[in-house]
Amino acid sequence: MKETGKLQTAKRMRDIQPFHVMALLARARELEAQGRSIIHMEIGEPDFVTPDPILEAGKQAFNDGHTHYTPALGLPQLREAIAYYYEQHYQLTIASQRIVITPGASGALLLVLGVLINPGEQVLMADPGYPCNRNFVRFMDGDAVGIPVDASTDYQLSKELIEQHWTDKTRAVILASPSNPTGTLVDKKSLQEINEFIQQKNACLIVDEIYHGLIYEDKPESALALSNNKSNNKPNNIFVINSFSKYFNMTGWRLGWLVAPPAIIDDLDKLAQNIFLAAPTPAQYAALAAFKEETITILDQRCQEFKQRRDFLLPALRDIGFNISSTPQGAFYLYAECSQFTNDSYQFAIKLLEEKGVAITPGIDFGKNKANTHVRFAYTTSMVNLREGVERLKSFVS
Amino acid sequence: MKETGKLQTAKRMRDIQPFHVMALLARARELEAQGRSIIHMEIGEPDFVTPDPILEAGKQAFNDGHTHYTPALGLPQLREAIAYYYEQHYQLTIASQRIVITPGASGALLLVLGVLINPGEQVLMADPGYPCNRNFVRFMDGDAVGIPVDASTDYQLSKELIEQHWTDKTRAVILASPSNPTGTLVDKKSLQEINEFIQQKNACLIVDEIYHGLIYEDKPESALALSNNKSNNKPNNIFVINSFSKYFNMTGWRLGWLVAPPAIIDDLDKLAQNIFLAAPTPAQYAALAAFKEETITILDQRCQEFKQRRDFLLPALRDIGFNISSTPQGAFYLYAECSQFTNDSYQFAIKLLEEKGVAITPGIDFGKNKANTHVRFAYTTSMVNLREGVERLKSFVS
Repeated sequence: MKETGKLQTAKRMRDIQPFHVMALLARARELEAQGRSIIHMEIGEPDFVTPDPILEAGKQAFNDGHTHYTPALGLPQLREAIAYYYEQHYQLTIASQRIVITPGASGALLLVLGVLINPGEQVLMADPGYPCNRNFVRFMDGDAVGIPVDASTDYQLSKELIEQHWTDKTRAVILASPSNPTGTLVDKKSLQEINEFIQQKNACLIVDEIYHGLIYEDKPESALALSNNKSNNKPNNIFVINSFSKYFNMTGWRLGWLVAPPAIIDDLDKLAQNIFLAAPTPAQYAALAAFKEETITILDQRCQEFKQRRDFLLPALRDIGFNISSTPQGAFYLYAECSQFTNDSYQFAIKLLEEKGVAITPGIDFGKNKANTHVRFAYTTSMVNLREGVERLKSFVS
Repeated sequence: MKETGKLQTAKRMRDIQPFHVMALLARARELEAQGRSIIHMEIGEPDFVTPDPILEAGKQAFNDGHTHYTPALGLPQLREAIAYYYEQHYQLTIASQRIVITPGASGALLLVLGVLINPGEQVLMADPGYPCNRNFVRFMDGDAVGIPVDASTDYQLSKELIEQHWTDKTRAVILASPSNPTGTLVDKKSLQEINEFIQQKNACLIVDEIYHGLIYEDKPESALALSNNKSNNKPNNIFVINSFSKYFNMTGWRLGWLVAPPAIIDDLDKLAQNIFLAAPTPAQYAALAAFKEETITILDQRCQEFKQRRDFLLPALRDIGFNISSTPQGAFYLYAECSQFTNDSYQFAIKLLEEKGVAITPGIDFGKNKANTHVRFAYTTSMVNLREGVERLKSFVS
């Protein structure tokens, strides 16, 4: 046990790392307070304010006095609205009873891992990957196994990689499509192979689809298409996590959802009752307006804006000398190899911030795999800022 | 491992029970849908809508575009407002840096136990007590030790009881003052003795003060008065949990706070970053108005209304034959011994609901200690409803 002053903390705290980008963000804010101009390409949330129709629905919820707890699984009408969204946008029939409203995708991950993972059991995931995933597993005293991935598999796990790392302690695999930090998708055929392998092992597939609304070319397909095992027509052990944060521009509201196999809903309900009580009520009422046509129109315009930013930033960074082998199909990130400039991504990011006022995220926040020679650029700022950022980057590396 | 359909859940799920009151509440809603009149005395949240000044501040936050993440520890101005509240209402100087804004008191408990408890370590708590407490400990794979308490200690733990149950695996003690389900307080002298004992053991005292604003006679004193060890002037290992839910009538917003020793704040920060990202932003901005004089005036009127309800319901229940030995000083609950009527509190509650349309909570939701001969009445409904409820109860037991 670690000593913190007089106080001993649990062993898990030794393994859970803070995000290094937070120190960079704090320093960026300091510099801004001193009057420096900072280009923020480190922030993992849309720069857009929540669309008006959602804000108006939030205000109406206040006027209607909706300030009490909702059921632990969420407002029935929101669960139904999400089911209808799958019907409309994915041509998938998902019973609303399978949909659990959660406090952000974070809440969904905590529920799933809390219900599934015993201390010492393993969860496989890609490295690089979203840092919270491994920390959630560690929080439940499980063992997060990061599998190194590279451009050869679009920075995604493959059936072969999963098979190589499988042990008798493996309980689940987490995929993210699009991925943070790479913005790449899991290929449809690969997803099928992975799922088949996992279901044969009677383990669980957890798919993070929180950036699903932000896919720029392909029409996205949800892993929920594989909900049922075709050989015996029984539900597969698939959990899909989604969120109102990214595509719906509702980060601060803390609202997400989880689609789970029917047999596990009662367990998720009792765990949610105990650890959350329920997701925030104002957010749930506001989110009912997220699926309105006028909202989707706004969101799709913003999605186009993100695409435009990607289409500018990707070639610009390549021109400067960053190596980005896969063209990211979604999310708002570019994961760039920078070994031609540094072998210490954190120092590179610090120096770039101090000297040029450009904030980016060092690779070490996303795992151990070549983390010191990668950085993440988020295009969550305007084209004007991105152009200025690129100019500063050019002068930094030249 | 338990089989759920094809899917095996983690062992902890066997030990985490759903709230029995939820089944009662669902049945009550069903009966209401059939046109039956139901008196709700089972619900653990104020019947009042959030006060207008807080709702207005929420709307203003939307107008101002505050829809992004806040820092993981919370909005600095809200942390300062809470520090000032301790200054004003408790004459306590608490550095705002020690205050962590959380998604409800639930979030605070999850953070504290996540930071402190290793698998297999014990946390002591009163039985009867708030059911989530033991389930949070179990969630972290710790061992929740319920210590039977009765009227002789006002249903609170004492130093003697804690000493009797202490083992070398004990890491923390949870107190709740006022307690749910009993509404009783921890006596000041007893709190000092308990704290001294725990600090000598280098363990942690966790005090749930979420019903603190709802204390009807005594001026409440916070356990934070014991923040510092007077012998060496070092911080004691005390964690105080509070919430905007109960006194501030903000249940659905999911907003609470935690006051922690300075040395542990960085750990809480990194854990909050990972498992929540942050508490809901609209709620945090709205809560800035919770401390305004006009809000406090509304809340204090509502507090008087709760007192009036208690002063009606307590003697009325005693008249009927329920045994309530301690006069509850706070919260909005009466915990009543009902052995003269039943030795199966759940069946008693079901029958009362079906036959008379009165919903109450069976003792089995609060632990194992004489749980079958106790029920909880919540006075979270109007005087008119309470009077009607009492008439129905009279006819039920006669």
